[in-house]
Amino acid sequence: MKKAVVLHSGGLDSTTLLYKAVAEKYEVFALSFNYGQKHSKEIKLAKLSAKKAGVVEHKVVNLNLDLWGGSALTDDLINIPDYDEKNPEIPITYVPARNMIFLSIAASYAETLGAQDIFIGVSQVDYSGYVDCRQEFIESMEKTINTGTVCAVEKNMPMKIHAPFMFLTKEEEISIGTKLNVDYSLTWSCYKGEEKPCGVCDSCILRQQAFQNAGFKDPLLILNSNS
Amino acid sequence: MKKAVVLHSGGLDSTTLLYKAVAEKYEVFALSFNYGQKHSKEIKLAKLSAKKAGVVEHKVVNLNLDLWGGSALTDDLINIPDYDEKNPEIPITYVPARNMIFLSIAASYAETLGAQDIFIGVSQVDYSGYVDCRQEFIESMEKTINTGTVCAVEKNMPMKIHAPFMFLTKEEEISIGTKLNVDYSLTWSCYKGEEKPCGVCDSCILRQQAFQNAGFKDPLLILNSNS
Repeated sequence: MKKAVVLHSGGLDSTTLLYKAVAEKYEVFALSFNYGQKHSKEIKLAKLSAKKAGVVEHKVVNLNLDLWGGSALTDDLINIPDYDEKNPEIPITYVPARNMIFLSIAASYAETLGAQDIFIGVSQVDYSGYVDCRQEFIESMEKTINTGTVCAVEKNMPMKIHAPFMFLTKEEEISIGTKLNVDYSLTWSCYKGEEKPCGVCDSCILRQQAFQNAGFKDPLLILNSNS
Repeated sequence: MKKAVVLHSGGLDSTTLLYKAVAEKYEVFALSFNYGQKHSKEIKLAKLSAKKAGVVEHKVVNLNLDLWGGSALTDDLINIPDYDEKNPEIPITYVPARNMIFLSIAASYAETLGAQDIFIGVSQVDYSGYVDCRQEFIESMEKTINTGTVCAVEKNMPMKIHAPFMFLTKEEEISIGTKLNVDYSLTWSCYKGEEKPCGVCDSCILRQQAFQNAGFKDPLLILNSNS
């Protein structure tokens, strides 16, 4: 079996990805981050879903990006905005260089494991305009990893970044995930870490629309409405 | 004044770089890492030298790369080796993807600050064969930063990675630093964090040779021999 590092935020995309990598017979090493985000609800669920998906190992890296904030997700002085369809700007929930940091650290973990495959659940279809979710960035990042690691440069063991959802909608992801028996009640998308999803932030709206379009009910909402 | 983020390990190279960036009239934001290395002696000195060099701000990021180790610098199960001139292998002190991680986090800090300049003190002349100290890697990393950050992609504010020591020897760096009045007694190179430098690890040997060739005495050794 080939080893793979899967970036696993605990959200809908990365949890679907985790199940997909396991189904594709990779030996999966899941990687999550406590990066100074305002709540750790997604990390708690990430631990449960990683176990349920059947990963070999799950590591949680601590990294205090809240040292400088600059995003509504890491900066106490910036409130999480409500979704605004008409706003063409990249939302303030953008965390500077987040995927670059996560992929660099994933490369470090992968090199140590002897893994050549890294999975990330980004999509440039259904996203919030974050530039580090685009194919162009992923391709550049892969080149950089293969220029800056001993395994690639000296040992002829280059790495591959897999982003299989890049050109899929969230709705299509959910259809894939449902076939893979992903337990979406163990995923968290809301930018706020309250008991129930707020239902008005970007992330909640994108999730709601996706479940609706896919023709499934979000089990997280069913659970919550019963609680 | 232009803002710059300077990666500052507390070693000889990055401390020289810090003084150089200040001398070049940048408003310097120094960035150090507690990344799970076995000792934090270099960080303590980094704080002192950053202050002495006159930086605007100095941040220390915590990041637990010792979660997976894989390097003599971060893994308790691997001893720091003595310098071996005849060994062509990349030493086990190589930390997988370290400069990629540091530069990604520097890009995040820079983007938040509105800075477009990042400095790193790597050299592909006097080094231990670490592939992430080469010009090819730095160029690729710069491209990736400019593909994955909003400032570069959306705001026409690309970043530049400056690696002014890339083609200099450590001896030449010390000559530059001496003219800039760098206080080398506040720098630490030894891979071990003991009271005095061990004098036998790669990093100690490279430092000793550089001071000798530059015709200066290492003030750290003078201080130590007096203590």
